[in-house]
Amino acid sequence: MPVDLPTADDVLAAAARIAGHANTTPVLRSRTLDALAGCELHFKAEHLQRSGAFKFRGACNAVWSLPEADAARGVVTHSSGNHGAALALAARTRGIPCHVVVPEGAVAAKLANIQRHGATLWRCAPTQAAREETCAQVQASTGAHLVHPYADARVIAGQGTATLELVAHMSGAGGVPDIVVVPVGGGGLAAGTALALAAVAPQCRLLLAEPAGADDTARSLAAGERRIDFVPETLCDGLRGALGLPNFDLLHAWGAEVATVADTDTVAAMKLAWQVLKQVIEPSSATVLAAVLAQPARFAGKRVGVVLSGGNVDLEALPWPG
Amino acid sequence: MPVDLPTADDVLAAAARIAGHANTTPVLRSRTLDALAGCELHFKAEHLQRSGAFKFRGACNAVWSLPEADAARGVVTHSSGNHGAALALAARTRGIPCHVVVPEGAVAAKLANIQRHGATLWRCAPTQAAREETCAQVQASTGAHLVHPYADARVIAGQGTATLELVAHMSGAGGVPDIVVVPVGGGGLAAGTALALAAVAPQCRLLLAEPAGADDTARSLAAGERRIDFVPETLCDGLRGALGLPNFDLLHAWGAEVATVADTDTVAAMKLAWQVLKQVIEPSSATVLAAVLAQPARFAGKRVGVVLSGGNVDLEALPWPG
Repeated sequence: MPVDLPTADDVLAAAARIAGHANTTPVLRSRTLDALAGCELHFKAEHLQRSGAFKFRGACNAVWSLPEADAARGVVTHSSGNHGAALALAARTRGIPCHVVVPEGAVAAKLANIQRHGATLWRCAPTQAAREETCAQVQASTGAHLVHPYADARVIAGQGTATLELVAHMSGAGGVPDIVVVPVGGGGLAAGTALALAAVAPQCRLLLAEPAGADDTARSLAAGERRIDFVPETLCDGLRGALGLPNFDLLHAWGAEVATVADTDTVAAMKLAWQVLKQVIEPSSATVLAAVLAQPARFAGKRVGVVLSGGNVDLEALPWPG
Repeated sequence: MPVDLPTADDVLAAAARIAGHANTTPVLRSRTLDALAGCELHFKAEHLQRSGAFKFRGACNAVWSLPEADAARGVVTHSSGNHGAALALAARTRGIPCHVVVPEGAVAAKLANIQRHGATLWRCAPTQAAREETCAQVQASTGAHLVHPYADARVIAGQGTATLELVAHMSGAGGVPDIVVVPVGGGGLAAGTALALAAVAPQCRLLLAEPAGADDTARSLAAGERRIDFVPETLCDGLRGALGLPNFDLLHAWGAEVATVADTDTVAAMKLAWQVLKQVIEPSSATVLAAVLAQPARFAGKRVGVVLSGGNVDLEALPWPG
């Protein structure tokens, strides 16, 4: 199914649409981390977004984009993670039903989050085919509208609003960023960030942090075509998805660069963020700090915008000795 | 040694003195915790203060209160925890030496923090007598000026500045608090808060959260005289100290109330704060949230200011199964 590519204007429209529903999250600073990294780090705290991740922005934009009659039949998605909870909460802001198809074996804490926000759960086998089939069945039986986790123009545009806010904040505190770093999995946040930068900071570079064990974006952008033949092997549970098609098209057009990050570096960066920033961020979010710390020459003296994407972590299964 | 009692004016003077050195920390909100507690919670984020705890305020006020000649000889304290690191960092802002006497067996991570900020460590046996004796020896040999962790007028006044900021922030966002809740150990923050409220919100109640296993403040205020005959038994490592004399006098005069909190409730509140607020706070800080959640009737519908006192936690020894 082809997806219309969203534009920079769609990000601006999304910002207006989700205002009043989404949090304007703070931008955090740390003298200690600046000294360690040798640059100015501005952390956009999307782990403080509603539902605990930037995903609420895209879900909220999709939900509030629907015509009244479509909205009344509800929304559906397949997700075992943050998008499911985000869509459930977004649907609740509009008072419409939400269905989430979840594969067997998903993390109990994340399922509880989805249910807490009032969504109906549908179980399926843990394969992509089973997810899509079950999703289609739910669509057929309920008339609910599909909101894909990342290969969706409204979702991409919504995710870009985090970077609009980041750039606006940094402009008011010394100037626009020289470079923005965000994690990449399916590419919703990454593509939305590219569009946001096109709108408000066209000179700014975009660097994507990607786990070495799920480096389909790095390989796709290097090859100039989508390469999604891989079995993800990373503890960054939010970044295991394959790069979406519209996401690839937008990132390729923008000339985004990728830094791949070893999980060991991600865990070290995550622990550092917890200790110094005192923020509970999930492994996926820590990839960006790991990417910056791994390449001091690239960032030296620069104004760096960094998106901390989410903070939904199982506190009883942390990736270090307890 | 008698200590002059600080006044509300001393807190206002401290705020001016430490401005530019201490962070103006943010005030955090959470729809989820408000719904759970049945009141409006405004969290003053002192775990985001420099050195990771409110202690920097008092240490900084003491350091910058010293006449030039005294300051040049440096400062000394005995502390195995946050005050030691705070004084070390405060001394560094003025470019003067700092000596910290630490008992054997102190947490390695906290010692590392003290050294990272450039202080000289002096080891002693883990008794109060050994601490004071070693401290006196360091004073005698270096001429350094003693800054007691809490029984010190300048320290008390400095700690009160957190509540000045909290009240100012809440005034700009709906009105002054009905009640402020802070943890109590030696009583520096507690007494400083009482003075701050006298200055800017005299109608506001003050509730002190104290571990049930170190409830000397509750017993002292109930008896109308200091009762510090106890062996602390609590995982709140920041709240094991005995209530100081000037601290008792100020809290008694103000009519502060105490809520004692079981460690199990503190751990549950700490985990909740990590999961929902996404903030790394230490057990001592979680006592305040535990106190609020334990007494819904007392807080129902109220505007509640809460001081999250610190975030220095050993991530590899969390008080829940890892």
